[in-house]
Amino acid sequence: MIVVLKNNATDVDVNEIKDKITKLGCDVHESRGSDYHFLVLVGDTNSIDASSLTIYECVEKIIFDKEPYKKSNRLYHPDDTIVKIGDKKIGDKKLAIIAGPCSVESKEQLLSVAESVKMSGAGFLRGGAFKPRTSPYSFQGLELEGLDLLKIAREKTGLPIVTEITSTNYIDRFVEEVDVIQVGARNMQNYDLLKQLGKTNKPILLKRGFSATIEELLMSAEYIMAGGNENVILCERGIRTFENYTRNTLDLSAIPVIKKLSHLPVIVDPSHSTGLWWLVEPLAKAAIAVGADGLIIEVHNDPENALCDGGQSIKPKRFDELMKTLSKLAEIENRTI
Amino acid sequence: MIVVLKNNATDVDVNEIKDKITKLGCDVHESRGSDYHFLVLVGDTNSIDASSLTIYECVEKIIFDKEPYKKSNRLYHPDDTIVKIGDKKIGDKKLAIIAGPCSVESKEQLLSVAESVKMSGAGFLRGGAFKPRTSPYSFQGLELEGLDLLKIAREKTGLPIVTEITSTNYIDRFVEEVDVIQVGARNMQNYDLLKQLGKTNKPILLKRGFSATIEELLMSAEYIMAGGNENVILCERGIRTFENYTRNTLDLSAIPVIKKLSHLPVIVDPSHSTGLWWLVEPLAKAAIAVGADGLIIEVHNDPENALCDGGQSIKPKRFDELMKTLSKLAEIENRTI
Amino acid sequence: MIVVLKNNATDVDVNEIKDKITKLGCDVHESRGSDYHFLVLVGDTNSIDASSLTIYECVEKIIFDKEPYKKSNRLYHPDDTIVKIGDKKIGDKKLAIIAGPCSVESKEQLLSVAESVKMSGAGFLRGGAFKPRTSPYSFQGLELEGLDLLKIAREKTGLPIVTEITSTNYIDRFVEEVDVIQVGARNMQNYDLLKQLGKTNKPILLKRGFSATIEELLMSAEYIMAGGNENVILCERGIRTFENYTRNTLDLSAIPVIKKLSHLPVIVDPSHSTGLWWLVEPLAKAAIAVGADGLIIEVHNDPENALCDGGQSIKPKRFDELMKTLSKLAEIENRTI
Amino acid sequence: MIVVLKNNATDVDVNEIKDKITKLGCDVHESRGSDYHFLVLVGDTNSIDASSLTIYECVEKIIFDKEPYKKSNRLYHPDDTIVKIGDKKIGDKKLAIIAGPCSVESKEQLLSVAESVKMSGAGFLRGGAFKPRTSPYSFQGLELEGLDLLKIAREKTGLPIVTEITSTNYIDRFVEEVDVIQVGARNMQNYDLLKQLGKTNKPILLKRGFSATIEELLMSAEYIMAGGNENVILCERGIRTFENYTRNTLDLSAIPVIKKLSHLPVIVDPSHSTGLWWLVEPLAKAAIAVGADGLIIEVHNDPENALCDGGQSIKPKRFDELMKTLSKLAEIENRTI
Repeated sequence: MIVVLKNNATDVDVNEIKDKITKLGCDVHESRGSDYHFLVLVGDTNSIDASSLTIYECVEKIIFDKEPYKKSNRLYHPDDTIVKIGDKKIGDKKLAIIAGPCSVESKEQLLSVAESVKMSGAGFLRGGAFKPRTSPYSFQGLELEGLDLLKIAREKTGLPIVTEITSTNYIDRFVEEVDVIQVGARNMQNYDLLKQLGKTNKPILLKRGFSATIEELLMSAEYIMAGGNENVILCERGIRTFENYTRNTLDLSAIPVIKKLSHLPVIVDPSHSTGLWWLVEPLAKAAIAVGADGLIIEVHNDPENALCDGGQSIKPKRFDELMKTLSKLAEIENRTI
Repeated sequence: MIVVLKNNATDVDVNEIKDKITKLGCDVHESRGSDYHFLVLVGDTNSIDASSLTIYECVEKIIFDKEPYKKSNRLYHPDDTIVKIGDKKIGDKKLAIIAGPCSVESKEQLLSVAESVKMSGAGFLRGGAFKPRTSPYSFQGLELEGLDLLKIAREKTGLPIVTEITSTNYIDRFVEEVDVIQVGARNMQNYDLLKQLGKTNKPILLKRGFSATIEELLMSAEYIMAGGNENVILCERGIRTFENYTRNTLDLSAIPVIKKLSHLPVIVDPSHSTGLWWLVEPLAKAAIAVGADGLIIEVHNDPENALCDGGQSIKPKRFDELMKTLSKLAEIENRTI
Repeated sequence: MIVVLKNNATDVDVNEIKDKITKLGCDVHESRGSDYHFLVLVGDTNSIDASSLTIYECVEKIIFDKEPYKKSNRLYHPDDTIVKIGDKKIGDKKLAIIAGPCSVESKEQLLSVAESVKMSGAGFLRGGAFKPRTSPYSFQGLELEGLDLLKIAREKTGLPIVTEITSTNYIDRFVEEVDVIQVGARNMQNYDLLKQLGKTNKPILLKRGFSATIEELLMSAEYIMAGGNENVILCERGIRTFENYTRNTLDLSAIPVIKKLSHLPVIVDPSHSTGLWWLVEPLAKAAIAVGADGLIIEVHNDPENALCDGGQSIKPKRFDELMKTLSKLAEIENRTI
Repeated sequence: MIVVLKNNATDVDVNEIKDKITKLGCDVHESRGSDYHFLVLVGDTNSIDASSLTIYECVEKIIFDKEPYKKSNRLYHPDDTIVKIGDKKIGDKKLAIIAGPCSVESKEQLLSVAESVKMSGAGFLRGGAFKPRTSPYSFQGLELEGLDLLKIAREKTGLPIVTEITSTNYIDRFVEEVDVIQVGARNMQNYDLLKQLGKTNKPILLKRGFSATIEELLMSAEYIMAGGNENVILCERGIRTFENYTRNTLDLSAIPVIKKLSHLPVIVDPSHSTGLWWLVEPLAKAAIAVGADGLIIEVHNDPENALCDGGQSIKPKRFDELMKTLSKLAEIENRTI
């Protein structure tokens, strides 16, 4: 942390701030430049609330040199984290392909989709039982019944199940019954939920909030990891920008950036980011080419009659063709599918 | 809702879609233009998932003509809503001024600030007991002890208390002990929390998420109102943009827009939006001039040593002067303070 | 400028960078922290291209401590700049109110509007002769004929004229015939135009690009000022965000921020920012309350038949009422209208 | 175009608007819904200024059904446009790879880079002679001398040259001496420049402004094409968002979207979008996988000493390796390099 002082700061002012910093446990290196005067803080700056320094009239601004996240920071953990789910892994050489319907709608629908994505090579089954919808008047998911259907689908196909949690009330059931617990974009900063998930040891798929910076995503991962659960998988799913042709703008540069800053695995959701089924295929390919550890894709056997987000789902046949193309791309990346 | 079809849509395609719409309970008015072909849906379109129509190859796009919010919509409720809190009101001619520290830190601190803001004319006391912080390593608030201190401050000053809820676990205590329950920006789309607050009859101060559109803010209000609780007060607190000098960009045009679209009262938070104490005064004035029903302002007796966000707090003396200026502005707006 | 090095940087690496900095004419103060290693550059860092330092593998990042603008920077010019236009001033105690139609359409239209805004107390007449339109098929303005009409209106009313330049070809004519030359948002970074305007001594009204940061706006002012023309008036006119109810989001916090960073006068355009006539009045009031030095407002006598942007224009009668309200607000701000 | 009226609109109001629309040459289809009343305009709506309709009190809003661009619209031109530059093509099966230094700095530098990128398989040489820089104090390019050096490099290597124009003053020279004229992001809405380029028949590489929507990019292409020059190549180079780790956010979904909306070729600039050399490689790969027609990449033989943007340039050796990987990706896309 570097405190930039105005050059007209008096010695009295500067000493007051230096004393305060020293009391907070840091050393100060001073550099007087032509326009500004710098106080470089050396030591553990994590506990210093920068905001309490900006209140001084002579402080021009505070500059942060260090990432506020630790457990998710590659600086302190150079090797890639590989999250294990039964005998499967996310973050390893083999890409994690998670596929399935937006919402679980019925046993027939779920089994049909689950079997077809398995045949095409998907490694995990996704499906929403609790659906966070913008409107209270929209279909909110089958809830616990949906969870039961997912378990049946897992039994039939052997695919581990990935589903979203929206309430702390159901944590125990999710821990017991689900293989990967998804935290959706809207709950990325629901710290109460994150803290409680941090006390479990379940793999957590943490989606980037649609207006969260990469640093904030890592800080949310930190909330889970600080509680002791280091099984976190990150997911880029599009950010909100002024461009409205697509629902969100998929930020693919975030993938190599996250890989540089953090050791956690990171996957891409090409379905929710754009909201348009015909963009799923090109963006899924781009995600693999840019270095993602996997994909989460919506597949529906009858999107015209889907209860939710049919417009962003692809059909099983198209998914099957996509998997074949992805397999060639994976090879170039020295990975398998 | 208007379905825009490609002009090369065959009669078979068009009829399939028209049949589907009819089954969903709407009538269809058809207009064939030079480039596109329109199907205007007439009837209750609320239950139609537009996404399920975009899946057809011949559908170019769906156009929405109607707001998805009902209970918060001025169209169906032309008169302003006035929320009552004891003998006070928000949304009425008298402006609601809510002031107090970011966090409750100690009895001395809270009472000192509470008494001074009361003397200056504030109508409500704010103070955070549960603090949602970006970092798990930052001060998280005094929690239940903070709630107890707020009650003491209310007893001493008579000011109703406004404080943020971050977990559904504490809803019963908040309902019993707090006068206005605040839902913070990060939880604006925590639907589980909103639904449960909708079952109470407490006034809810709902802050706009920092990347939420005005429509989404109203949809979140709708979640509370759909449950039966119509005591909702909206709060503009800045949105996330590319401009980084200020923490967020305060969207003051949202105030007259919300007044047009909705009957709910709306206030402004000039402290969190910018993160800079010296911007609180000009933005508080602008908020009153633009038509807000009130303000929520951070005031701290010793911001240099605040445990949280000292940099955006103003001191009691400055708050007192601000109130005098606001009083003159209120007069121009034909309001009182 | 501060160069942040990785802690695993070798002495050889560090010395190479230090040598490079020294050759570029700066001194280096070194601070070794627990996670990073800092090189604080002391001296004239303006000529150093930071990008050329990020190429070293051991450089984590570059931190900028200093604003890149000089002539527009309040640090080197503490007093407010007041721009003189004949016997009028912008940036002084009296607010500058610039009003008139979006486009000059005819002699009758322009004179009618000019006379009415003068009667209501406007100090300047605006009117577009050259219109930069998003579509090549839209009305592009009367061009030179429009300029002639503006001169007639000036003669009749005595109001100085403010109009936009869109091509370097017409600089000589604008310098000779116009009182304030406006550079529109789309041309804020048309450096060729800025440089040439810098060689004149005409007052320039420089609008913020709709995705320009405050710093970039000041850098564009710097382009004009670096050429010798210090008569620059800045204008906030809304920035592009994800919120689409309004055309742009008016960033009123930019006004006090610009006042802090720069000595240049700054006005607000409430018409273009929102695109909605019914938002002009509340935002004009908020702009004065937040500390703007003036306003530029679109007024049209017959907006239903305007050739351009009728939807954001207010009628003369409404403008007249607005001026009365603004006059009361100005008084609170210790200014006149 | 659809005019949405409030349901309380009187017959007099509705008839006034219908008359106006009829006078403007369109037919009106009327549909009365439960909440709103629609007027669907049928006919040539291009000349109607929607803004002039929003001024009526009874108009709720205007809905656009049709793209405002024509010549660039795939609707009226279903086949892909292939731009020819000598014996080379952009938009065809063979990918266009444009490589070279950010700025032309010296004959040695340019020839060294030009020869190495040619050896690696690049099809075109880029290099800035006129550099639009945010600061007037930064290196502005070698200007005409730079143009001369580019011509020498073309002679030596046979590579067509691509360079940016920043002033209408030099159009004649650019037309005569350059193979592809680049319009930079900051000038995307410099309509004066676009109109004049529309009168030439030179291939124009039009970069998306960093806050331009896809529609606005196509409207800028329209300005060039409306003048008669249909040789336009579009370029995605990142948009401005709240994410600040990267300079801009590369919007790769824009590629398939542009391909759907327009017949023009579109390439990607992975260097400027991020500003970080280590992101060039993954994003270049993703761009090919998503369907781009080519890339424009900065390559510098000595980035540590580059006069401009060294931090985003890759070295020739790295470019050579990248080309080998891209060649494999191209094969999957059924293209060549």
